[in-house]
Amino acid sequence: MAFPLIDPERLMDRHAAMAAVGATGRGGVDRQALSAEDIAARALLIGWAQARGFACSADTVGNLFVRRAGRDPAAAAVLTGSHLDSQPTGGNYDGVFGVLAGLELMETLEDRGIATRRPVELVSWTNEEGARFQPATMGSAVFAGAMPLAEALRAVDRDGIALADALEAMWAALPDLVRHCPVAAIHAYVEAHIEQGPVLEQAEAVIGVVTGIQGLRALAVETFGAEGHAGTVPMAGRRDAFVAAVDLVAAIREACRDPEDVLRMTIGQFRVVPGSPNTIPAHVRFTVDLRHPDDGRLAATGDRILEACRRYRGPCRVEARELLFSHPVDFDAAIRERIARHAEARGYRHRALRSGATHDAKFMAGLCPTGMIFVPCRGGLSHSEAEEASAAHLAAGAQVLSDTVIELAGHD
Amino acid sequence: MAFPLIDPERLMDRHAAMAAVGATGRGGVDRQALSAEDIAARALLIGWAQARGFACSADTVGNLFVRRAGRDPAAAAVLTGSHLDSQPTGGNYDGVFGVLAGLELMETLEDRGIATRRPVELVSWTNEEGARFQPATMGSAVFAGAMPLAEALRAVDRDGIALADALEAMWAALPDLVRHCPVAAIHAYVEAHIEQGPVLEQAEAVIGVVTGIQGLRALAVETFGAEGHAGTVPMAGRRDAFVAAVDLVAAIREACRDPEDVLRMTIGQFRVVPGSPNTIPAHVRFTVDLRHPDDGRLAATGDRILEACRRYRGPCRVEARELLFSHPVDFDAAIRERIARHAEARGYRHRALRSGATHDAKFMAGLCPTGMIFVPCRGGLSHSEAEEASAAHLAAGAQVLSDTVIELAGHD
Repeated sequence: MAFPLIDPERLMDRHAAMAAVGATGRGGVDRQALSAEDIAARALLIGWAQARGFACSADTVGNLFVRRAGRDPAAAAVLTGSHLDSQPTGGNYDGVFGVLAGLELMETLEDRGIATRRPVELVSWTNEEGARFQPATMGSAVFAGAMPLAEALRAVDRDGIALADALEAMWAALPDLVRHCPVAAIHAYVEAHIEQGPVLEQAEAVIGVVTGIQGLRALAVETFGAEGHAGTVPMAGRRDAFVAAVDLVAAIREACRDPEDVLRMTIGQFRVVPGSPNTIPAHVRFTVDLRHPDDGRLAATGDRILEACRRYRGPCRVEARELLFSHPVDFDAAIRERIARHAEARGYRHRALRSGATHDAKFMAGLCPTGMIFVPCRGGLSHSEAEEASAAHLAAGAQVLSDTVIELAGHD
Repeated sequence: MAFPLIDPERLMDRHAAMAAVGATGRGGVDRQALSAEDIAARALLIGWAQARGFACSADTVGNLFVRRAGRDPAAAAVLTGSHLDSQPTGGNYDGVFGVLAGLELMETLEDRGIATRRPVELVSWTNEEGARFQPATMGSAVFAGAMPLAEALRAVDRDGIALADALEAMWAALPDLVRHCPVAAIHAYVEAHIEQGPVLEQAEAVIGVVTGIQGLRALAVETFGAEGHAGTVPMAGRRDAFVAAVDLVAAIREACRDPEDVLRMTIGQFRVVPGSPNTIPAHVRFTVDLRHPDDGRLAATGDRILEACRRYRGPCRVEARELLFSHPVDFDAAIRERIARHAEARGYRHRALRSGATHDAKFMAGLCPTGMIFVPCRGGLSHSEAEEASAAHLAAGAQVLSDTVIELAGHD
């Protein structure tokens, strides 16, 4: 039989409903990991899944699973999904698309009464964004054994709330959710996502066959000085943590010069304590986000930054440490071939590309054959409330995901 | 008759009680203007004042007044006081001392049944610190007509709460408080305060006769860029508001080089939006606090900073504006003479000094003869939870304040 057609209208309705959860009123959402808004989004997804008779559960780090059984109870599942959490000023498609596209293909199977040999399982990973708790892609890291559970549970947000406590709030708000230890055996993982970059749009392609993910090295730098009155303490006698931090920022920018403009360096979080205009800052904490497709270059650049922090000789104390070193990953060739073949069969222009952003698929690639499907987003813009993707592109991506997952799950 | 002795033990008991309001658990307080903690401190003060039969009221910007009537109902009042609000990590004496010393002298008058010719009025100014709402010394600025009330009411804190709304919370929490339009006629203003600098301690003096206050120019600088994904947007194409801000900080530090180390420059508040590790910042707002005893030097330095912001030619938009230009002030010679004479009469080592910090007395100096009394603080440390002052020094300062105010108010 032919692969079934998904329902693009239902997909867009679901997107509209999700966009209302944590809506900022400026076109985007604020749905940080395990916040009340993220929990409300999970509840909405669970409601849709339960209405179709799918089993819902979550694991010890809060990764949410929605399962449609297969004909063969012993067969390893095909897993698909992405994440529902967002940046503080996030868009309506980052993460959500992969979750809703996965649900859409499961509903399509249900509509047509199609039984697959393998179970099809949807996952929404906990804290992909890393905006509230660090590091990013925490849920998949724990799932894949790349991060100890205890370490994830200890992560605290800026208000001092630990992930463990935020998870308790989730369990309290979702009492029907089954606590589940996920099966180790996964046949394959396929994730759909907006590109978050300009390549597909510029190439006028509809489907991106993702070849892999560039590396990410995340560092945290802290400076410790002494508070004092802005009007009385002479400049020469100060231990100003802000001054130390901006001196380090200058050294870090110097260490990251790349004439080829392949390296990406972002200082996105920079907190000054106590943060009062007339008090000399005693403490600054900032993050450094580094990306490069080449593992060696990434390692060397991060090392130069850590070395620059060690070389600091001013009046403050400096601490620098690595939060995450996520090496570049190549996706499974057979999965890439399947995605390209289905895009071709549906008549969508497609091209191969490497992901600039990191994704949960990165950790899954260490567990099972893994692939990703990208669709274009307007101007390559993401991590922004102005993020946009067309209904036609989203439908195309969901269709190719559906075809690929159903083929992997096996149907008659 | 002789000037009455204050009760140092009661003064220290009151200090201990105030230190518990908003206590951080690390030796200091967080009692930012019109917060629940600041309102609780006001309630405590009002309770003590009402127990002695003093009339309590507040004006349109929340400045709190405690009045002890004089024999001559037509006579202009002698005003004393300081502030109860604190820095986010403030000490136990900054501001509180001047308020409690003023209350102590009024209670002493009451204990001894001494009638003064003029009323003696205690004031606790709203938002002296400027930590929550900007600018600092807002309450006295409005009182003295140096800042329009409407402008103060519009000031918003980091959560977007306007001062006007915070004031409504205060009125709701303190329903007995009379709304009062303060009398224009003030005979004199005398404020006691810890020095917040090292001069008295190094000179082994107990009383500082403050000659005046150095100038303060406060600026706010904002940079506006565009959000984007840390992994996908090439460095060359970014409009990173953080990068723009640190470039401006470098130019500002250059504009503030002073080999004589008289100029003070502090960047104490620096907020990055959205503040997520993997999102390119779209907005930064930071404050610049400049101090100098010379009005011309202060003006020229501030102008150089504003010019550096105008000269910025990077990819972001920059806005820079003045929050406050508080010119250097000299205190009344006759009040200074009285303070020095009373310190001498009590046998306290005293010396004249200029204040590095700004105070509400600065605005009062434009309304009436004004003076300030300083006492030492350990290591000159203030705007810190480690702030300390000795009971003996506090008692000495309160005694000289009492003598000076009672003399100004006239007693038989």
